[in-house]
Amino acid sequence: MRVLTKDILQAAKQGDPEITVQGWVHRVRELGGISFVILRDRSGLGQLVFDEKPDLTLESVIKVQGIATLNEKAPGGAEVRVKTLVYLSKAAPDLPYQVNGDPAKVGLETILDHRGLSVRHPRLQAIFRIQATIIEAFGAYLRSQDFIEIKTSKLVGSGTEGGTELFEVDYFDRKVYLAQSPQFYKETMVASGMERVFEIAPAYRAEKHDTPRHLNEYVSLDVEMGFIESELDLIELERGALAYIFEEVARKNSAELALHGASVPSPDMVVKAPVVPYEEAVKLASAEAVKGKGQTARIFDINPEAERFICDWAMREHGSDLVFVNEFPRRYRPFYTYPKDTGDGKAASTMSFDALFRGLEITTGGRRQHDYNAFLETLPRFGLKPEGFGGYLKLLKYGCPPHGGFAIGCERLTQKILGLANIKEASLFPRDRKRVEP
Amino acid sequence: MRVLTKDILQAAKQGDPEITVQGWVHRVRELGGISFVILRDRSGLGQLVFDEKPDLTLESVIKVQGIATLNEKAPGGAEVRVKTLVYLSKAAPDLPYQVNGDPAKVGLETILDHRGLSVRHPRLQAIFRIQATIIEAFGAYLRSQDFIEIKTSKLVGSGTEGGTELFEVDYFDRKVYLAQSPQFYKETMVASGMERVFEIAPAYRAEKHDTPRHLNEYVSLDVEMGFIESELDLIELERGALAYIFEEVARKNSAELALHGASVPSPDMVVKAPVVPYEEAVKLASAEAVKGKGQTARIFDINPEAERFICDWAMREHGSDLVFVNEFPRRYRPFYTYPKDTGDGKAASTMSFDALFRGLEITTGGRRQHDYNAFLETLPRFGLKPEGFGGYLKLLKYGCPPHGGFAIGCERLTQKILGLANIKEASLFPRDRKRVEP
Repeated sequence: MRVLTKDILQAAKQGDPEITVQGWVHRVRELGGISFVILRDRSGLGQLVFDEKPDLTLESVIKVQGIATLNEKAPGGAEVRVKTLVYLSKAAPDLPYQVNGDPAKVGLETILDHRGLSVRHPRLQAIFRIQATIIEAFGAYLRSQDFIEIKTSKLVGSGTEGGTELFEVDYFDRKVYLAQSPQFYKETMVASGMERVFEIAPAYRAEKHDTPRHLNEYVSLDVEMGFIESELDLIELERGALAYIFEEVARKNSAELALHGASVPSPDMVVKAPVVPYEEAVKLASAEAVKGKGQTARIFDINPEAERFICDWAMREHGSDLVFVNEFPRRYRPFYTYPKDTGDGKAASTMSFDALFRGLEITTGGRRQHDYNAFLETLPRFGLKPEGFGGYLKLLKYGCPPHGGFAIGCERLTQKILGLANIKEASLFPRDRKRVEP
Repeated sequence: MRVLTKDILQAAKQGDPEITVQGWVHRVRELGGISFVILRDRSGLGQLVFDEKPDLTLESVIKVQGIATLNEKAPGGAEVRVKTLVYLSKAAPDLPYQVNGDPAKVGLETILDHRGLSVRHPRLQAIFRIQATIIEAFGAYLRSQDFIEIKTSKLVGSGTEGGTELFEVDYFDRKVYLAQSPQFYKETMVASGMERVFEIAPAYRAEKHDTPRHLNEYVSLDVEMGFIESELDLIELERGALAYIFEEVARKNSAELALHGASVPSPDMVVKAPVVPYEEAVKLASAEAVKGKGQTARIFDINPEAERFICDWAMREHGSDLVFVNEFPRRYRPFYTYPKDTGDGKAASTMSFDALFRGLEITTGGRRQHDYNAFLETLPRFGLKPEGFGGYLKLLKYGCPPHGGFAIGCERLTQKILGLANIKEASLFPRDRKRVEP
């Protein structure tokens, strides 16, 4: 029966210390005729002691039987005195990537080129253990709020946003596109009577730019909810989801957070995160820019720089890593965003919001136009014709409740929890303009 | 505060029966000047009573305030005597699909053309509520066994199986393909030290045939596990996963199962499901074919007809809806399948298996070749060259534990739990050669 390295100590303390362990050769050290081997398995690191020098290459996979023995100097307080060694997979000696080195000294492209090796380092593996918790907690929270998980097609006849930035697919005798978002489908399922749905699935953007915050393929944590009044209902829902995600990451991944010197916001912080209307947010960002730069910098809209300024402000004034910006002007939002009457006679505002977390937009959301006639009236104002929106019109024509939703970028949230410089670090097999391997 | 229709009875019994309900107009009936409206929301159906005839089209979304009142004759034992009515979304009267009719009388293509309307029927919505439970339970079970959820790219430079049946994608200046399976990636992550991984994601097969058991895009419930001995370890894992899925569906979706007159196997049945080697399974199927057809039908390999015969046998002899067939001949499995020495001198068998459930293959799996040299030696026997397998070779060269895995087709499992005639019924937005809408 295999014992994990984390349980060697327990085995050493019990009556039957003869155990089998399996894993990768992480490090080998010789000392006065004795060999110490650090073995790595999914639970962590453990020490093996060989009386004779074994023929081991780094990263080989081995199975050893031996006696679990207390040793205060060993990692974890115990080690395995090896009796038999079996090679499960001998690693070639020309290792192209130093697994047991410091990943901080390795370039990102090298890390990505060698994913199967680089993720062997506990600090890099920690990223994806945390990401798994994010995905699990997102689903668990939404189920607790009566949401149904759906799976929708990623092959669509046309784009939700009007056809730009789409990857084209040869689909038998015709062309289809990779879905930019499940927007239309999740709205359809809300209107189908499910009322509350979520989806965890890949989304595609054929954007050519290469920035530390963009991926051409990413995991979208998507939500759509019926019978809402405004974007404020969605902000409350996202507060709940994020608070639960952070709680679960803190509970399950404290070791992984520690490897990055990272922490998650407290649920209390998420509850008190401010909601700032767009126009006010622009002013705050401008003031922050002036303060930070000691000059009369001006911010005119919420670009990536402004996102950082707004987050600086939220941290200073509210002690919050998170801030919601709502009421975006119509020109910045998709045509189907529901208008908001802000009482000042301007009909140019919308029931929309972004969530900014530690300087980065991690969510875009809003209430959608659910009224058939209003939708039809809006199209020409955006230079659009009803012909391209047959599916939407059908959706709205036969009973569609007021609704809205949002999406959290899974890799962005992972990136910002851990303070990673580039979003690609938070994707196992990222895709960018140049990279489709491995 | 909104009350769901399922809670009208409770509201009627309590001190404060004035409530708000929201939902879709499912049915309208007039009787002696009084109008009875059946309102549908995500919790089910409830009755509204209007003293005057309201101007309501079927499927309109409304919000009413009224008094919850006990009435033994109403569905659920209570109704809402309406005081105020608000239209949230008036449905046009030219409804192209009769939502409150019997879906059994509607053709599949019509159901799929009108997904946003057809899923409003509780019996069709039940399919996807059960599917959501399958997905949730699959993940929960694997997490309980120390598996990590991963998300891998669906855009790959080449196909795992050698390049056939792939959808081509225009990716900036080059061509990539939609992944047929996460095979290579899940193996990579096992070897990365995660050891045990699972993924829930779309998979793509550019197969031209249109059968009741094939989809061109489906949800694959994928598992990969390190440090296994043979396919029997994987069969045990799948037993556990299926038993838990069935338990959860029985616990959470009894109402949905009842709408289809369906039931799930007991955990006990899953535990005792037989494991039959391929050669024996062929003989059983042949015998069953002779028996069933009263003639000397012969079965030579396990085709869809043979799958049904083997399941007939398993049900009769073992009282089991589920049967595992293992030790497939090498010619039927991918080249990287691990060979099995069955003791009779034939090296032509493999550590592989299928799971057949109620007449349909729902899983293919097996142990993989993890030995670098054996992998290299195998390639030419399949007419393959090492050049196309650089990623695999690198994976195996630097320490890869014995491992294997399987995938459960989510829609197939859904289909067979409910006894649906066509797999497309179990996909919200199925894709076939002709269908990419909605």
